[in-house]
Amino acid sequence: MSDALKVALLGCGVVGSEVARLLREHADDLAARVGVPLELAGVAVRRPQRHPDVPAELLTTDAEALVARDDVDLVVEVIGGIEPARSLLLSALQRGKSVVSANKALLADDGAMLHDAAARAGVDLYYEAAVAGAIPLLRPLRESLAGDRINRVIGIVNGTTNFILSRMDATGAGFEEALAEATSLGYAEADPTSDVDGFDAAAKAAILAGLAFHTRVTAADVHREGIGAVTAADMASAKAMGCTVKLLAICERTASADGEPAVSVRVHPAMIPRTHPLAGVGDAFNAVFVEADAAGSLMFYGRGAGGAPTASAVLGDLVAVARNKVSGSRGAGESAYADLPILPMGEVITRYHVALDVADRPGVLASVAGAFAEQDVSIQTVRQEGRGDAATLVLVTHSASDAALAKTVERLTGMHTIRRAASVMRVEGTPGG
Amino acid sequence: MSDALKVALLGCGVVGSEVARLLREHADDLAARVGVPLELAGVAVRRPQRHPDVPAELLTTDAEALVARDDVDLVVEVIGGIEPARSLLLSALQRGKSVVSANKALLADDGAMLHDAAARAGVDLYYEAAVAGAIPLLRPLRESLAGDRINRVIGIVNGTTNFILSRMDATGAGFEEALAEATSLGYAEADPTSDVDGFDAAAKAAILAGLAFHTRVTAADVHREGIGAVTAADMASAKAMGCTVKLLAICERTASADGEPAVSVRVHPAMIPRTHPLAGVGDAFNAVFVEADAAGSLMFYGRGAGGAPTASAVLGDLVAVARNKVSGSRGAGESAYADLPILPMGEVITRYHVALDVADRPGVLASVAGAFAEQDVSIQTVRQEGRGDAATLVLVTHSASDAALAKTVERLTGMHTIRRAASVMRVEGTPGG
Repeated sequence: MSDALKVALLGCGVVGSEVARLLREHADDLAARVGVPLELAGVAVRRPQRHPDVPAELLTTDAEALVARDDVDLVVEVIGGIEPARSLLLSALQRGKSVVSANKALLADDGAMLHDAAARAGVDLYYEAAVAGAIPLLRPLRESLAGDRINRVIGIVNGTTNFILSRMDATGAGFEEALAEATSLGYAEADPTSDVDGFDAAAKAAILAGLAFHTRVTAADVHREGIGAVTAADMASAKAMGCTVKLLAICERTASADGEPAVSVRVHPAMIPRTHPLAGVGDAFNAVFVEADAAGSLMFYGRGAGGAPTASAVLGDLVAVARNKVSGSRGAGESAYADLPILPMGEVITRYHVALDVADRPGVLASVAGAFAEQDVSIQTVRQEGRGDAATLVLVTHSASDAALAKTVERLTGMHTIRRAASVMRVEGTPGG
Repeated sequence: MSDALKVALLGCGVVGSEVARLLREHADDLAARVGVPLELAGVAVRRPQRHPDVPAELLTTDAEALVARDDVDLVVEVIGGIEPARSLLLSALQRGKSVVSANKALLADDGAMLHDAAARAGVDLYYEAAVAGAIPLLRPLRESLAGDRINRVIGIVNGTTNFILSRMDATGAGFEEALAEATSLGYAEADPTSDVDGFDAAAKAAILAGLAFHTRVTAADVHREGIGAVTAADMASAKAMGCTVKLLAICERTASADGEPAVSVRVHPAMIPRTHPLAGVGDAFNAVFVEADAAGSLMFYGRGAGGAPTASAVLGDLVAVARNKVSGSRGAGESAYADLPILPMGEVITRYHVALDVADRPGVLASVAGAFAEQDVSIQTVRQEGRGDAATLVLVTHSASDAALAKTVERLTGMHTIRRAASVMRVEGTPGG
C-alpha cells in the first residue's frame, strides 16, 4: 500500500474528538476504502491539557503552523465560527490542501471566497457535515439531483428548536420553560441565541439554497425569524386546527412580481398539519424534503447534530477528498451559474393563520373581512370560538404576498373592535379548516 | 465552451423516453453543470416506428454499432434484463466509455464483471437508478457513509408489492383481488412475477448489501420470499396486534454461529408495528433505513419507480460521469475488500408471529409451549382469541435462528391438538403484545 495521507484536525471538541476516534478505530476500513491509510498528523486545540485522549505529540496550539506543515495533505476543520477558521482554511486551500469542514456559518458567509480558493488551487472543499449532521443531503443535492430541476427544499434543520417546539407541543409549556428543559438536558447551549433566533438554520438554508438552485446565497440573504416569540397560545391555536408549530427552512425557486426567475430563502416558525410528514419529526431529529421536477418529493431524515453523526459526515467527505487526492482528480466544485436574485420576503407568497380576540358584536366579522379585502387577501376559513367578550376569531388565509398579509395584520391590530391578535403565524401545507 | 459529450441511449421505453426529454429540455442547465453540452448521439430501440418523439435520424436498431461509434463518449442503458444489456455494456466499457445503467438485475448478477471491466478501462460505471428510482441511496451509501460502519439496511424497495399490501391493509382484500387492482391501475405489469415473487427486491437488496458492507453479493445470495402467500388472514392477524405487513429488504452485518463476520441479505414479507416509520409508507412509494455506527439511523423516502423519477437518477449519474470525463478523472469504483461470507437463512436471527387454530382444551397451550421449548425458542407473548372449537392461539416469539423457528412451526402443524396454522410470518421491529 502506498504512503499514508496525513490529516490535520483543527478543533477537538464534541465533533473533533469523534473524528479522531473514528480515524483510529476504523483505520483499516478507511485505508481499504481510500486505497492508502489516513493518518492523523496533528490536532490543533486551544488548551492541550484538556485532551488526554489524544496522544500528546499530536496536540498543538499553533493551528497555522499545522496547516502549513509540508507533510499535511488534508485539513479537517471543526472549530466553527468565522475566524480563525476562515484564515486557516484559505491558507490550507492556497497551499493545495483539500479541506473538509463542518462550519455552516463560515460556508454560508464566505462560501464563494473559499470555493474560489479551492478552484484556483485545484483541490476539494467538502462540507456535508455543515448541514443536517449525518444526513446525506449536500451530496444528493449537488450530485444525485444534478440532472434534475429542484423547485423546493423545505425542512427542519435545527435540532435544538425542534426539541423545544416538540416539548411545547407535548406539554403545553411556554417557550421559556421548554428552553430551560432543553438546556438542562444538553439540547441547548448556555447561549442559545444561534439556535433559538434561527441563525443556525439560516446558515444551513443559505447553503441548501445555493446548492439546490446553482446560485450564490449567503446567510444575509435569508429572511430569518426565530422561535422566541412562539407562545403556548400559538401552539394551542395550532392544535385546535390539527396543526403543530415547527421552525422551517424553506428554499424556493420562484419568480418576482414581473415574472423574472428568482429564489426565496427563509427560516421562520410555521403551523403545519399534523398529517404532514415533517410534523412527526420529533425531538432533536432533522428532516428535509426536496421537490424536483422529475424526481418528485424526496425526504431525508436522521440525526442532525451530535458528535458521532456529524463526525460520520466529516469522515465520508474525508474519504472522498482522499480518494480524489490519490487518483489526482477533483470532485465537483461550486456551481453558481444560475446567478438568481433573492426575492424580498415581502414578495414571497405565504399563508397566514390569525387568531383575534374580539368582542362578539355584530359587525366585527365584517370589519375584519374588510381589512383582508383591502389588501386583496382572501380568507380560506373563519372559525369563532367563545362568545361575548371572550370571543376569538380564527382565520386562515389563502396565499398572498407576505407584505399584504403583514399589512393586513397591522391594520387589524389597530382596529378598535379587536382587543388583540392572540396568535399570528404563517401556515405551510394544507391544514384542516 | 468545449466540444459536446455524445451520449448513446440504449432503450427508449418509459425511462428512456424521459431521459431523452430531460436531456433536451434541461440542455442548458446540464451544459452549465457539466462544463460542456451533453448531446444525444443515437437511441437504440427495437422498433423505430414506435418512437415518433425521437428525431428519426437518431434512432437505430443496431445497438452494438451505436456503442462502437467513435464519436460516442458515454453510454446510458435502460433496456433492462441480462442480455443484450450485458454484452452492450461490456463492449462500451472495453471501448473506454463510461456507463450509466438502471439495470438492477444485471448489476445484481454481473456487477463484479462489469466493475472489473470499468476498472480495467479506467472509466465509470454508475447505477443509482437501479435501486429505489429517484431516491439518492447508492451515492450516500458508497460516498457519504464511506467513513462510517453500516450495520443494517432495511426498507421497502418495490412499489408494486407495497401498493398491493397497502390495499390489502386498507380494504381487507385478499392477495389476488389487490393484485388485480394493481394491474388495472398500471402499478403491476401483465406478468407480475418479478415484483410479486420478490425477484426485483432481491436484486436491489443484493446491490444495497454489496455497497453497504463493501463485499460482493449477488441476487442468488439473497433469501427471497414473495408476497403471493400473504393472506387476508395474515393481514387481519397483523392488525390485531397493531402491525401491518410489508415486503422488506433486509441487509445485515452479522456473525455466524462461531462468531465469524458475515452478512445476511433477505427479502420477505414481515409484520411491522404501525408505529414503525416504514409502516406509513403507502402505495408505490419506497423508503429505506440505513443504520450506521456513528450516523445512527437515516431514512430515505421517495418515488421508487416510474419514468421521470428513474430518469432523474439516470441524469444525475450522467452529469457525474460526464464531469469526470471532462476533468479526466474517475469516480469511486467497486469496493469489495471486506469479502464477507453470506449467512444461510437458517442461521439468521429472526422473530416469528404464529397464529394457530386450536381446540380450546386443557393441555393445548402446554403442548404448544413444549414445541417451542424443544427448539429453544422462547415465547414473548401469547394471546388466545375465541373459545371452544374456534379458538386461535396467537404467539410472538423472542429472537431465535430462523431454522429453529421454522422447525417449531413444522412441529406444531403436525400436532393433533392443532387444527391448522392460520398465519405464520416473521416480525420486524417491536410490536405491541
